[in-house]
Amino acid sequence: MTSQAIEKRPGTGRIETFFDGVVAILITIMVLELKLPAEVFSQGRVDAVVAEFGPKLAVYALSFVVIAIMLLNHHMLMRPATHQTNALYWWTANLLFWMSLIPLSTAALGDAPREPLAVAFYGAVLTANSVSFTLLHRCAACLGDAEGRLDEFHRLTLKKDWFFTSLYAASIPLAFVSVYLSMAIFLVNPAAYFFPEFVPWPRSWRGPQRHMPELRRKG
Amino acid sequence: MTSQAIEKRPGTGRIETFFDGVVAILITIMVLELKLPAEVFSQGRVDAVVAEFGPKLAVYALSFVVIAIMLLNHHMLMRPATHQTNALYWWTANLLFWMSLIPLSTAALGDAPREPLAVAFYGAVLTANSVSFTLLHRCAACLGDAEGRLDEFHRLTLKKDWFFTSLYAASIPLAFVSVYLSMAIFLVNPAAYFFPEFVPWPRSWRGPQRHMPELRRKG
Amino acid sequence: MTSQAIEKRPGTGRIETFFDGVVAILITIMVLELKLPAEVFSQGRVDAVVAEFGPKLAVYALSFVVIAIMLLNHHMLMRPATHQTNALYWWTANLLFWMSLIPLSTAALGDAPREPLAVAFYGAVLTANSVSFTLLHRCAACLGDAEGRLDEFHRLTLKKDWFFTSLYAASIPLAFVSVYLSMAIFLVNPAAYFFPEFVPWPRSWRGPQRHMPELRRKG
Amino acid sequence: MTSQAIEKRPGTGRIETFFDGVVAILITIMVLELKLPAEVFSQGRVDAVVAEFGPKLAVYALSFVVIAIMLLNHHMLMRPATHQTNALYWWTANLLFWMSLIPLSTAALGDAPREPLAVAFYGAVLTANSVSFTLLHRCAACLGDAEGRLDEFHRLTLKKDWFFTSLYAASIPLAFVSVYLSMAIFLVNPAAYFFPEFVPWPRSWRGPQRHMPELRRKG
Repeated sequence: MTSQAIEKRPGTGRIETFFDGVVAILITIMVLELKLPAEVFSQGRVDAVVAEFGPKLAVYALSFVVIAIMLLNHHMLMRPATHQTNALYWWTANLLFWMSLIPLSTAALGDAPREPLAVAFYGAVLTANSVSFTLLHRCAACLGDAEGRLDEFHRLTLKKDWFFTSLYAASIPLAFVSVYLSMAIFLVNPAAYFFPEFVPWPRSWRGPQRHMPELRRKG
Repeated sequence: MTSQAIEKRPGTGRIETFFDGVVAILITIMVLELKLPAEVFSQGRVDAVVAEFGPKLAVYALSFVVIAIMLLNHHMLMRPATHQTNALYWWTANLLFWMSLIPLSTAALGDAPREPLAVAFYGAVLTANSVSFTLLHRCAACLGDAEGRLDEFHRLTLKKDWFFTSLYAASIPLAFVSVYLSMAIFLVNPAAYFFPEFVPWPRSWRGPQRHMPELRRKG
Repeated sequence: MTSQAIEKRPGTGRIETFFDGVVAILITIMVLELKLPAEVFSQGRVDAVVAEFGPKLAVYALSFVVIAIMLLNHHMLMRPATHQTNALYWWTANLLFWMSLIPLSTAALGDAPREPLAVAFYGAVLTANSVSFTLLHRCAACLGDAEGRLDEFHRLTLKKDWFFTSLYAASIPLAFVSVYLSMAIFLVNPAAYFFPEFVPWPRSWRGPQRHMPELRRKG
Repeated sequence: MTSQAIEKRPGTGRIETFFDGVVAILITIMVLELKLPAEVFSQGRVDAVVAEFGPKLAVYALSFVVIAIMLLNHHMLMRPATHQTNALYWWTANLLFWMSLIPLSTAALGDAPREPLAVAFYGAVLTANSVSFTLLHRCAACLGDAEGRLDEFHRLTLKKDWFFTSLYAASIPLAFVSVYLSMAIFLVNPAAYFFPEFVPWPRSWRGPQRHMPELRRKG
């Protein structure tokens, strides 16, 4: 297909802007759950502020980083997609639905950070997000494949997606063994996606991946 | 009219971005209505979480899908419009006003999912949305018609709009007969718009519609 | 100044998008004030819903229209501005500050629609908005004037701005005479701005204004 | 590096739009903290409205100006950055995290404007913001430096950033001496950034800075 024909089809711009907009709102409304009652300050004790505020702020920071990582990886994920289709739209909407539950699970975990059920609920929401993210990645990769734009890098990251989705899924039953096992998973998974180009596999694929951002961008 | 003359008039970009922005906010603030009290988790009973959370989540998911469908169909609807006019702006604002009541009716139905009055209220808000959507579609189609850009596809989808608007209107009185009749309509209508190109009529129009996304895009 | 030199300066795009984004949020968060308690529905009386909901919905609809009108007129207002300056940024921020108080005054008036003080407060917020809008219009007009882009139309609409700002200012003391006098002003003023090209003065200026949207658009 | 090669790398557009979106939401949700109970109006006493509303409105206005200044300076800060990198993304996300705490500290200070602990908390959040802003500025400047795009102006403003960050840091302990000392800093710092081109140092650098907006814009 010539580049002229590609230009005539609807681009992915409007769907990406919508995704960014919803993420911007989600990342911000979580902060509405954080409240500091005026009494905390009038008692004037710093330790009371820290005890009240500490766990909620930590969970908020974790969810903030998780959402920021999803946004950064979404930039990478959309690269093979050359144009908008109904399938791409609905997989994006599906991801946004599960992302929209993150503020809720964040508030639940912030209120009861050591309750196994709250930890499992947080893990379940993240698992649903990870599954939805992987399915959207696969849909974008298929579009790129039909155009001959899919490369080794996206094949490898799809395997990475499934591996870390399984890890999230494991955090649900593990919460009833020990909440700290689940929390370790909540820390390991974002770390693995902090740099989207990182894949925890040996080096045969390293060559093409290093130059990817320059070479495979949408025109 | 030459393409140069068209370029000189204000485009529909700013109005579409504004529409997307409001929709992104509406779709997200509905989730603020979903609250899970800390007690639910400390009691540690999964069935309590499900009983508390189930109906609200189901109604939220329905409204999420309804709004996502309106956004997807809005992309299709705006294709014939070649430039912004005051009429197009005000029909868009009118649609956004009625869309902004969806979070309210969602909260009402989530609180009282079996009350006929709450179901009728939800149906009334969706009917107003459907009427407003059809009127905006007609306004965009008129603009396209003046430019010679209106095609058979948009003439057919306008008839589809009026048909499903009537179905939504029927859900208001039917709620007082049985709330399940209204709920069936709430499921059928989104399904008919899930793929904007789908029209529940026989095939004489199918030919032009299939290639429409490629051929009728705004330059 | 040649068109090449103009292109090198920062455009007004980012500031306009920011304005649209804040307006999209403001217009949406007002709806968070509208609550329908579950009891209203379980009592099953339509008149209770209407009595509870009527005045709040009417005030919300009025504020929605006022903000939509400000957005539409902002599109027109920014036409003479050819590039971003610090002055333009700060007059825009000043307008957004006063616009951000509209949800607050809307909630106040919705709670107490017949209290002179609430009506006066609503009028005071709208007066501050109208003054800020006029000052931003003057700033954009000055930029256009330096570029030789200011036309008769913007000179006339600036006079219109000052006239209707005075009318809003009159609604503050008039609320203590009769709240209905102030409410009449709340209806007349938006009506005068519903079509930005409308100026309530005789026809000498009509010629240039009619073709303005085509001729004076930013390239 | 040729301009063609630069165009092939991902631009900073999507990250800037995301930043603007989050700022638009933050600046707006602060207003949700401002509530005027209906009783205030029915008592009909203007002084009660002012006493209830005055300090909260003043703190809100201060935070509004602080965020508006950060947005305006962010426009200037991003000029040397020629393309998006993971580092730039994460320094932006870090800044947004600390900015997202401003509504919280604003509500705290509005509730207890004379409590040293609330003032110190407000100062601590602004200090974290100032540090994050400076680090993002340094990251963007490094990118510009590698491209040979960094100029005297950005070297000078980085020094300015560190100076005023120290001043914010001083406001934390000073709150326990006198809250008015801290408040003076809260007023001086925004004033120094009101015009991004202003640097409180003697004139040797003035020449290049004055024409900077025209000369150093991204193409």
